[in-house]
Amino acid sequence: MVVENATIIGVGLIGGSLAGAWRKASFARHIVGVEADGSAAEAALRLGLVDEIQSTVPAISDLIAICIPSDQIAQQVADLSSHRAAIFDVGSVKTPILDALVARLNAIPERFVPCHPIAGSEHSGPEAARADLFENATTVITPTSSLNPAALQLVRSAWQATGAEVVELTPAAHDEMLAVTSHLPHLLAFAFMQQIQPEHQQYTGSGFRDFTRIAGANAELWWRILSMNKSQVFKAAQDFDVNLQALLQSLADGDKQSGIAMLSAAVKLDPGEDA
Amino acid sequence: MVVENATIIGVGLIGGSLAGAWRKASFARHIVGVEADGSAAEAALRLGLVDEIQSTVPAISDLIAICIPSDQIAQQVADLSSHRAAIFDVGSVKTPILDALVARLNAIPERFVPCHPIAGSEHSGPEAARADLFENATTVITPTSSLNPAALQLVRSAWQATGAEVVELTPAAHDEMLAVTSHLPHLLAFAFMQQIQPEHQQYTGSGFRDFTRIAGANAELWWRILSMNKSQVFKAAQDFDVNLQALLQSLADGDKQSGIAMLSAAVKLDPGEDA
Repeated sequence: MVVENATIIGVGLIGGSLAGAWRKASFARHIVGVEADGSAAEAALRLGLVDEIQSTVPAISDLIAICIPSDQIAQQVADLSSHRAAIFDVGSVKTPILDALVARLNAIPERFVPCHPIAGSEHSGPEAARADLFENATTVITPTSSLNPAALQLVRSAWQATGAEVVELTPAAHDEMLAVTSHLPHLLAFAFMQQIQPEHQQYTGSGFRDFTRIAGANAELWWRILSMNKSQVFKAAQDFDVNLQALLQSLADGDKQSGIAMLSAAVKLDPGEDA
Repeated sequence: MVVENATIIGVGLIGGSLAGAWRKASFARHIVGVEADGSAAEAALRLGLVDEIQSTVPAISDLIAICIPSDQIAQQVADLSSHRAAIFDVGSVKTPILDALVARLNAIPERFVPCHPIAGSEHSGPEAARADLFENATTVITPTSSLNPAALQLVRSAWQATGAEVVELTPAAHDEMLAVTSHLPHLLAFAFMQQIQPEHQQYTGSGFRDFTRIAGANAELWWRILSMNKSQVFKAAQDFDVNLQALLQSLADGDKQSGIAMLSAAVKLDPGEDA
């Protein structure tokens, strides 16, 4: 499947990588970027990620990717609700965006396909874009009951063109899952870094540097994600605390058997797809 | 400075890397390994890390490195208390080892130099050894009041030969520092992994994989480290909880200003020396 006219709103890390991936796969013949930030727009053009920058979405667009912060997505989708194109977003939370759409429009536009590619970097902006960012990464689609099948199929093809593995979840299941696998580790790393002082720097090993890398993620972006998904984040943090207290209790009791059982359980999972 | 006869007790990751680093720097003319594990002993010989394996420390040794788990170090030092060599360990905790020595000998042997190289890997064994493991890594020496100056100087040279940056701390300051920079991140990662189920695996990003890597560390080894330093670990975990609760409270209150201030504070530190 090939798209004649694609538009990407927001040509930062994710939007820029999407453009690069589509070019590489010859999925889109013409890519328009809509980007308010002048230097990001200039970089996306210079890097050849997009063919042109426009200030609004062209009427002839067949496919519109909304690659802006999660808390601005609902408004953007609402503004495009009468557009003929299939529209998708890349927001890290799904339920709050759909709730906000219902609040604005009393319904979710039938050509809007909620998506979340689980890929990223601690860097941002089009200069950090990579055409292979989504290769073998999971992209979650959370279809709504009113969803237009042709729009779903087009968006699914758009992700498959990037090399992503597309899976479907309900919006609520997505938000609960990601609270545990992504939002909680960020929350913990951010909290951990609060207690680090400059004098600790010289005495840090690999574990510390992993935390530093996670906590080096964009503060504004992560505040938005954690805020939008806060009920699921609170639940994940409560479950974490139960496990932390159990581990501390086994240390306090000198209960080697249960302690080592817990520490060993932690290593049974495959370290994952970055091998 | 060159040592004629060095002995390394325990030729795993750390002992093997020390041997490799000393060979690379031509610091030791002859290296004996003392290793109870037959396959580790065979590998250390085969890899050329040591010249020979012996069952006990030779009387002619000038320098003895004790590279065994922290909870076995005090007994090993006590057993060698009448040896003429300078002796050092590589244990991740310092005060409990010194306390255990005082309990056994009523004193700390004057030629024992407590050390901790802050370097490692989630892998173990001589096959994981790297001659550059200590390059630019901090090695902490925690001198005791009775320490023999010649022994201190020899051990300092032994670390400088590996490319390590040698710093001195009191044993208590070391244990408090490492509880925050190393033991706490491991504790948090181990606790976090308790709540991960196989179905989470498909929905994991970079932050998750960093946690998995930390929690992939050896369970037995880490149980020993956390247990031996538990009073400092508890203190570090309490401080962490205060910060985590503050972050959750700012989310609950929707207090964007204080939330972003906390998230931003977390990124002000340099990600560290692995750049």
